[in-house]
Amino acid sequence: MISEKMQQAVAGSSAIRAMFQEGRAMAAKIGAENVFDFSLGNPMTPVPAEYNQAIIDAVKNESSLELHGYMDNAGYPETRQAIADNLNQRFGTAFEHKHIVMTVGAAGALNVVFKTILDPEDEVLALAPYFGEYRGYVANHQGILKVAEPNQDTFQPDFADLESKITEKTKAIIINNPVNPTGVIYSEETIQRMAALLEQKQKQYGHEIFMVSDEPYRELVYDGNKVPFLTKYYDNTFVTYSFSKSLSIPGERIGYIAVSPQMADCEQTCSGLSVANRMLGFVNAPSLMQKALIPCMNCTTDVAYYDRNRQLIYGALTKYGFTCIKPQGAFYLFIKSPDPDEKKFVEAAKKHHILLVGGTTFSCSGFVRLAYCVSYEMIERSLPAFEALAEEYGLS
Amino acid sequence: MISEKMQQAVAGSSAIRAMFQEGRAMAAKIGAENVFDFSLGNPMTPVPAEYNQAIIDAVKNESSLELHGYMDNAGYPETRQAIADNLNQRFGTAFEHKHIVMTVGAAGALNVVFKTILDPEDEVLALAPYFGEYRGYVANHQGILKVAEPNQDTFQPDFADLESKITEKTKAIIINNPVNPTGVIYSEETIQRMAALLEQKQKQYGHEIFMVSDEPYRELVYDGNKVPFLTKYYDNTFVTYSFSKSLSIPGERIGYIAVSPQMADCEQTCSGLSVANRMLGFVNAPSLMQKALIPCMNCTTDVAYYDRNRQLIYGALTKYGFTCIKPQGAFYLFIKSPDPDEKKFVEAAKKHHILLVGGTTFSCSGFVRLAYCVSYEMIERSLPAFEALAEEYGLS
Repeated sequence: MISEKMQQAVAGSSAIRAMFQEGRAMAAKIGAENVFDFSLGNPMTPVPAEYNQAIIDAVKNESSLELHGYMDNAGYPETRQAIADNLNQRFGTAFEHKHIVMTVGAAGALNVVFKTILDPEDEVLALAPYFGEYRGYVANHQGILKVAEPNQDTFQPDFADLESKITEKTKAIIINNPVNPTGVIYSEETIQRMAALLEQKQKQYGHEIFMVSDEPYRELVYDGNKVPFLTKYYDNTFVTYSFSKSLSIPGERIGYIAVSPQMADCEQTCSGLSVANRMLGFVNAPSLMQKALIPCMNCTTDVAYYDRNRQLIYGALTKYGFTCIKPQGAFYLFIKSPDPDEKKFVEAAKKHHILLVGGTTFSCSGFVRLAYCVSYEMIERSLPAFEALAEEYGLS
Repeated sequence: MISEKMQQAVAGSSAIRAMFQEGRAMAAKIGAENVFDFSLGNPMTPVPAEYNQAIIDAVKNESSLELHGYMDNAGYPETRQAIADNLNQRFGTAFEHKHIVMTVGAAGALNVVFKTILDPEDEVLALAPYFGEYRGYVANHQGILKVAEPNQDTFQPDFADLESKITEKTKAIIINNPVNPTGVIYSEETIQRMAALLEQKQKQYGHEIFMVSDEPYRELVYDGNKVPFLTKYYDNTFVTYSFSKSLSIPGERIGYIAVSPQMADCEQTCSGLSVANRMLGFVNAPSLMQKALIPCMNCTTDVAYYDRNRQLIYGALTKYGFTCIKPQGAFYLFIKSPDPDEKKFVEAAKKHHILLVGGTTFSCSGFVRLAYCVSYEMIERSLPAFEALAEEYGLS
C-alpha cells in the first residue's frame, strides 16, 4: 500500500485525469476540431531555432564527458555567469555566478528553496488565486501553506487580509508574477507595499521572512508591461525561473534560482540551495541543457502569437458579457463565473464542448481559468459556443 | 537563516568540500600529476557515439514542440515501452510500458519511490556499507533509516543481524547492486534468502515490505558476473536505474523506476509514482534525453576500461599486503584500514598524496573506499606511493 498522503494525492489527480478522458471521449464522438480545450497551460509556440542549433553545436564541439558529466551541484559556472550577466544588463542588478543555482525547472527551484529555508510547521503565505502545485511543494518540506485573499476587482493583494495572515511562524511569501491564473502583473506599487510590510514584520518578529518569486511567465508580457524585478525591492528575495515558457521547452526541466546578493547569510544560503539540490535527488540541472542556454540568453518564443490570441478571446468574451480582468502577461484569462457555483458553470461550458478549470483549483472559487495557449483557429471556432453559453446565462 | 537541518547538511558538505580544496592545494604545490585522487565516483569512459548521434537525429527530425514539450509525468510511452522490451528480452520479465516511470536519474527515482510509499516514521533498512546519500533521501520523506551490518569477510548481509533489524515499522529495504562502495554483487543465494525473509515478515506484520533496488552499476560487471534481477525473486520490488554509468552521462539526469507487475496494488502504486514525480518538482525526466535513449537500449560505455583498472589496482594493493574483497562490479575497492582508526589511515595516505574516502561515510568504519574510475596512467603512477604506505604499516 502506498502512503496515506499519496493515496489522497492520487485520488485528486484522478479527477484531473477524468476530465482529460472526458475531453478525449468528446473528441472521439464529435471530432477533435469541435472540442474547445482551454484547460491546459502548455506552451505551443515554436522553440527558437537558435536553441536547437545550440544543442547540436554543443554535442558536436564539446567534450562528451564534460558535456554530459557531473558539475558542481549548482551548475556550470559559465551558464550561471551568463544568466547573472543577462539579469544585470536587463535589470541593473549585481549578480555574480555564485548567486545563481541551476535547477530542474521552476518546480525544482521552488522545492530546493523550501527545503533550504523551512523548518517543520513554518508557514508559507500564498496569494490567491495561486498555482495549486504550491500546496504540494510546501507540504513536501513539512511547511504549512496559508492563503491571503485578493482584491477581486484588481487581483492585486488585499493588503488588510495579507497583513492579518502574517504570523510569527511566517517564513516566506510566494509570489507568482505574472500570475497564473489571472494574467495580472503585481504592480511596482504592490511590490513596494509588500516589501515595506515584510520589512516591518521581520523587525516585529525578529527573523527573516523571505520573498520567493516564481517567474516562469516573466517574458510573456503584453502592451509593453514590465514585471518588477524583486531583488531590487527587498533583500531577502529568491527569484525562481524556468525557461519552459520563454523557450517553449517545458519537458527539458531547466531553470534557476537567483539569490539576492543582499540576502541575510547569503553565502550559507547559496550553499544550502546547492546541497538541497543534491539531497532532493535533482543533483543538478540537466547538463546539455545548461550548455545550450549560454548562446540563447536573449532568445524568446513568439510572444506576439499569444498576444494575438489574448486580444481575440478577451475581446470576444467581454463583448458577449463575460467579466474578466484583462491579462497583462502569461496566457490565461480568469473569468467570473456567471453561476455562483463555478462547478455548475464548468459543466454548462462542457455542454458547449468548452473545457475550463474551476477557480477552486487556485483557491479562488467563483471563477474559472481559460488557457489561451492554443491555436488561433481553435479560438475562432470556439466563439459561437461562448456566445451561446453567454446567452444561456442572459449575459448580453 | 536557513533551516536547522540544512545548517547541519551544509556543515557536513563543507567537510567534503574541504577535502576537495585540500586536493587542489596539493596539486598546485606538487603538480596535478603527482596527486592520486581516488575519492570521486565520476564516470570517465567515453559516451557512446550512438547516443550523441541520437540527440542530433532527434533535434533534426522531430517536432520541436513534441521533443521539448510536456508529456505524461511518467514519460513518453515509446521510451517506457523500449525499456520494458529491453528488460523483458534480457531478463525474461513481463513489463509493459505502464510499469516503467522515467525519472531524473536514480537519485530522483529513489526519492519518488520513498515519497510514494513512506508514511512518517516508517523505517527503511539499508545494508552497510551503503551510499551515504540514502540518509537524506529517506529523511526527505520523514522516514527513518536503519542499518543492517554486513558479514565483513564476504560483504554479503549478516542475516542474523538483518532479521533482528526488521520491525513492524519496516516499510522497505534498499539494496544497491552491485554495491557502492564494495564492488560486491549480492548473490542469487543472498537475494533468495532475503526474499524468503521478507515474505515471512510481511505475513508476520500483515503489511507490505518493499524491496527498493538501486542499480546504477548494473551494466558495470566483470568476469561474466550477473546481477540477479530482483522482480523475479520478490513481488513487491521497485528497480531504480540510472543511465549515468552505463552511458557515462551523469549530468543528464536520466533514469527510471521499474515496478514489478506482481506488486500489491500495482496500478495505484504506478499512479502514485507518477503523481510523486510531479509533486516533488521533477515533473518529468528531461524530454530530449528520453527520446535519445530509444535507439541506445543496448549501448554501454567501455566496461573493459574499468576492468583493466580493477585488475591493476586490486593486484597491486593485495601484493603490497592490503586486504580488500575483489570487486565483481562497479568501480570501487573497499580496503580494510590497517589502522584501527580509519581516519588516521586516510591522513597517512594523504601524506603520500593519495586521496581516499573513509568508510564512516558508508556507515562502515575501519575501511576506506578507493574509486578506480580514473586514468590507468594515474593508477600506474600511484603504485609506488601505495607500496610506501604499505611499508609504513608493515604490511608486506
